[in-house]
Amino acid sequence: MTDTGTDAKQGSYVTAGSEFTRDTDYITTRITATGAGQDEYPVEADRYRLVVARACPWANRAVIVRRLLGLESVISMGMCGPTHDERSWTFDLDPDGVDPVLGIPRLQDAYFARFPDYPRGITVPAMVDVPTGAVVTNDYRQMTLDFSTEWTAHHRDGAPDLYPEALREEIDEVARRNYTEVNNGVYRCGFAGSQESYDAAYDRLFTRLDWLSDRLRDRRYLVGDTITQADVFLFTTLARFDAVYHGHFKCNRSKLSEMPVLWAYARDLFQTPGFGDTTDFVQIRQHYYIVHSDINPTQIVPKGPDLANWWTAHHREQLGGRPFGDGTPPPPPVQAERVPADHAAPQG
Amino acid sequence: MTDTGTDAKQGSYVTAGSEFTRDTDYITTRITATGAGQDEYPVEADRYRLVVARACPWANRAVIVRRLLGLESVISMGMCGPTHDERSWTFDLDPDGVDPVLGIPRLQDAYFARFPDYPRGITVPAMVDVPTGAVVTNDYRQMTLDFSTEWTAHHRDGAPDLYPEALREEIDEVARRNYTEVNNGVYRCGFAGSQESYDAAYDRLFTRLDWLSDRLRDRRYLVGDTITQADVFLFTTLARFDAVYHGHFKCNRSKLSEMPVLWAYARDLFQTPGFGDTTDFVQIRQHYYIVHSDINPTQIVPKGPDLANWWTAHHREQLGGRPFGDGTPPPPPVQAERVPADHAAPQG
Repeated sequence: MTDTGTDAKQGSYVTAGSEFTRDTDYITTRITATGAGQDEYPVEADRYRLVVARACPWANRAVIVRRLLGLESVISMGMCGPTHDERSWTFDLDPDGVDPVLGIPRLQDAYFARFPDYPRGITVPAMVDVPTGAVVTNDYRQMTLDFSTEWTAHHRDGAPDLYPEALREEIDEVARRNYTEVNNGVYRCGFAGSQESYDAAYDRLFTRLDWLSDRLRDRRYLVGDTITQADVFLFTTLARFDAVYHGHFKCNRSKLSEMPVLWAYARDLFQTPGFGDTTDFVQIRQHYYIVHSDINPTQIVPKGPDLANWWTAHHREQLGGRPFGDGTPPPPPVQAERVPADHAAPQG
Repeated sequence: MTDTGTDAKQGSYVTAGSEFTRDTDYITTRITATGAGQDEYPVEADRYRLVVARACPWANRAVIVRRLLGLESVISMGMCGPTHDERSWTFDLDPDGVDPVLGIPRLQDAYFARFPDYPRGITVPAMVDVPTGAVVTNDYRQMTLDFSTEWTAHHRDGAPDLYPEALREEIDEVARRNYTEVNNGVYRCGFAGSQESYDAAYDRLFTRLDWLSDRLRDRRYLVGDTITQADVFLFTTLARFDAVYHGHFKCNRSKLSEMPVLWAYARDLFQTPGFGDTTDFVQIRQHYYIVHSDINPTQIVPKGPDLANWWTAHHREQLGGRPFGDGTPPPPPVQAERVPADHAAPQG
């Protein structure tokens, strides 16, 4: 999710004197294998559309997991542009500004199809039920866990287990602290309404990043010896760190590229199919610097940093680990979902 | 000089749609050895007061040159605080907010003592004639050149020649281009009123920094084999690069610390008496992030970057060069003019 919506005007993220508090009141309906629970929807090929914006780290998680598991052929994907207006994310990248499957110009139309008076933020990622045009859920965390555990019948051959049963407690615990200190921590730095709340958020962020550096010094991945949901969750924040959070959100003790362990870890994932090939640096920069006009009133988008370093050798394979466990890497993205070459980190 | 004044409200630096243009219309009166020209003042010990703000790169030049030449004992120094209001720099660091020698709370009082209707920016550095309380000049460039060439009778024993006659043409040429592309170039990035003017300023800035990296690869100093005015002029911008210009002004292709030649050059100077010991990183950060509220409306001051790296080994002495030529380094600053330890880069 990224912070916008009917109740959040474009450019109003900072509340003077206060720390930033994220609205985490999502639509918690789930899409499950049986669809049996109250208010649940059944897993079904070609029924749902994942609506994302490439810029958004929470949506990027869903894009990565969908791709690692090979769900592209059964869950279609709609892509909003990098910026939005004060009402909603929009399909401004599509011809005539209308999503070709849902037939709507604004994501809020799908929210209103579910709840006509939906009062909270219009957020991505959102899973939309195509027959009714209604949002099923925007609960980004549960959404990708369900991709792993409920959509197994549709996983590709060789799909990795991103949420192994024996490790779920550890994954949840690591991810929970990463969320409060890092994933959401960078926003608490950037949208701090007072020097005190910024200072506290900055200290918490870098304390956790140091903890992560220690944890990842001798192990290739966060939990177990394969890529899990915990790595996906952390990656989308690290991918935006130097491009946006370092300057725009003042997370500037150092760049990611100046933290050797985390930087090698991030490059290892970036160079793994599913990660770097879903990262659109142009849309990332445009989103943050244009949408958050209360902290960047000129809305000028920086040209830097130089991104070629994402493809440098990381040597993490020396730590062992099996990126996809008993599985295999996903094939390249389908043509329609490729990040344009001039939006990606240039490969030397 | 830093951009403020009676005609420049605090927080109004960007003009939408335009590139940033610096008002370079200074008071060009000079203090000369003879004081013989029209409107000239004679060099005289204990007559003038140099008013600075440690935060300001143009003022920092004058602080460095005064110290290298040992003029502290004949030209006293008044220090304004890091921030100012929309009217003027102020002596808010002094007891009761009044400069103890000039007896004024605002630097504009000294400007008005010279020109009652002074219409332009109230800038530092300024040389003030103490008997009349009137600003003699705020022409920061000529000011430090005159410290070198007109105040020779008062130079300390061992004072370096920062503006050697045989090299003046080359110094002026290098410094002129450094000014347009780098010293003022960072401001043109930060205060750009359009994406186009930012993009152009960014390209010019890094083109020149690359040129400087090439020039300094095999030579220790910019012109000749000793420290000259050209090095002083460049240093005060480099010292602020990672702390402010990289994030606040979006000069973010890379940090200075990621440009190996320039970074070693900057550390070499920083570790030379007169340079690092006049650099106050706390005031630097506070100045830019608090005063420029139109590009940083929250006025929150970043905690980073980590500054300990300023004291790492630079190995530039291997290039030869004689920092002070036939002269000697200056002694440590007098107690009253020392940068507080917690405002300086920590020495490992």
